[in-house]
Amino acid sequence: MEDCLKLIFDRQSIRKFQNRDIPDDVLLKVLSAGNAAPTAGNLQARDFIIVKERETKKLVAEAAMNQKFIADAPVVIVVCANYPRSMRVYGEKGKLYAEQDATAAIENILIAACAVGLGATWVGAFYESKISAILEIPEFSKPVAIIPVGYPAEDPEKKSRYPVEELIHWEKW
Amino acid sequence: MEDCLKLIFDRQSIRKFQNRDIPDDVLLKVLSAGNAAPTAGNLQARDFIIVKERETKKLVAEAAMNQKFIADAPVVIVVCANYPRSMRVYGEKGKLYAEQDATAAIENILIAACAVGLGATWVGAFYESKISAILEIPEFSKPVAIIPVGYPAEDPEKKSRYPVEELIHWEKW
Repeated sequence: MEDCLKLIFDRQSIRKFQNRDIPDDVLLKVLSAGNAAPTAGNLQARDFIIVKERETKKLVAEAAMNQKFIADAPVVIVVCANYPRSMRVYGEKGKLYAEQDATAAIENILIAACAVGLGATWVGAFYESKISAILEIPEFSKPVAIIPVGYPAEDPEKKSRYPVEELIHWEKW
Repeated sequence: MEDCLKLIFDRQSIRKFQNRDIPDDVLLKVLSAGNAAPTAGNLQARDFIIVKERETKKLVAEAAMNQKFIADAPVVIVVCANYPRSMRVYGEKGKLYAEQDATAAIENILIAACAVGLGATWVGAFYESKISAILEIPEFSKPVAIIPVGYPAEDPEKKSRYPVEELIHWEKW
């Protein structure tokens, strides 16, 4: 199980990809891992849009502050919070739960991608309304992350983090 | 790396714990894994409160809809979104980023806990204001999850999920 910790600690954001397709079964495994993430009341209030078409990827990249590397990934996964799926049970609090369901899935997708030899990046900077328009996301849902995925063509330096002790409070804040 | 996928797929919510302490170095490793999660602009807009005192854990359990098992865990981690740490750079969008930073850390904590032989549960049902009062969380921050952690004393049945295909949209919603 040490391998899993190593993977968590060593995982890097990958923004350069080989010109190589991802087999659908590999992609589905990664997305299944995403949906294996915890979810409030097992409601799984998250949806995944898989974009492979070149023109659509270019539009998505433009709507994401023109981060062109997004269009160069063989696959772009857009993770959406599906609000009514959670709010019909939890009311207003279901809004946060849907976003957490989606976000937990994102993290699993990133780890699982790495585990199967893929690279990926969590892109959070984008115009929600533009992405929704391009991908025809209904009003009841919202894109919460864009994840370009592919076989890595770079091995970037590991980003440093604060020593975790600086973020920890013992017993009380 | 198959082990990591297996861990992601097999991980279960653990709500019964052995009467056994968690060494601090193990706990810190798990929290470091939490903080190895992606974070917008590397701002790490998340804080972790570690609660071990019996009386505080009981108060936390009460504020979490009286889920008594929380008080029986040797350690309760409360993950907080640290809004100003993200919003000072990203403005209003930093609010979502802080919550995503915190949520990605939660998922890593759950996986890392499992990887070191611990069990944990993501508790999302609680009164924010009560938890904030008990743990003296400042107004600029917010608790987003309570994670009771300990050595597992149960092996619950795996929860089923929708076939992931039901959550996937190809090219467009």
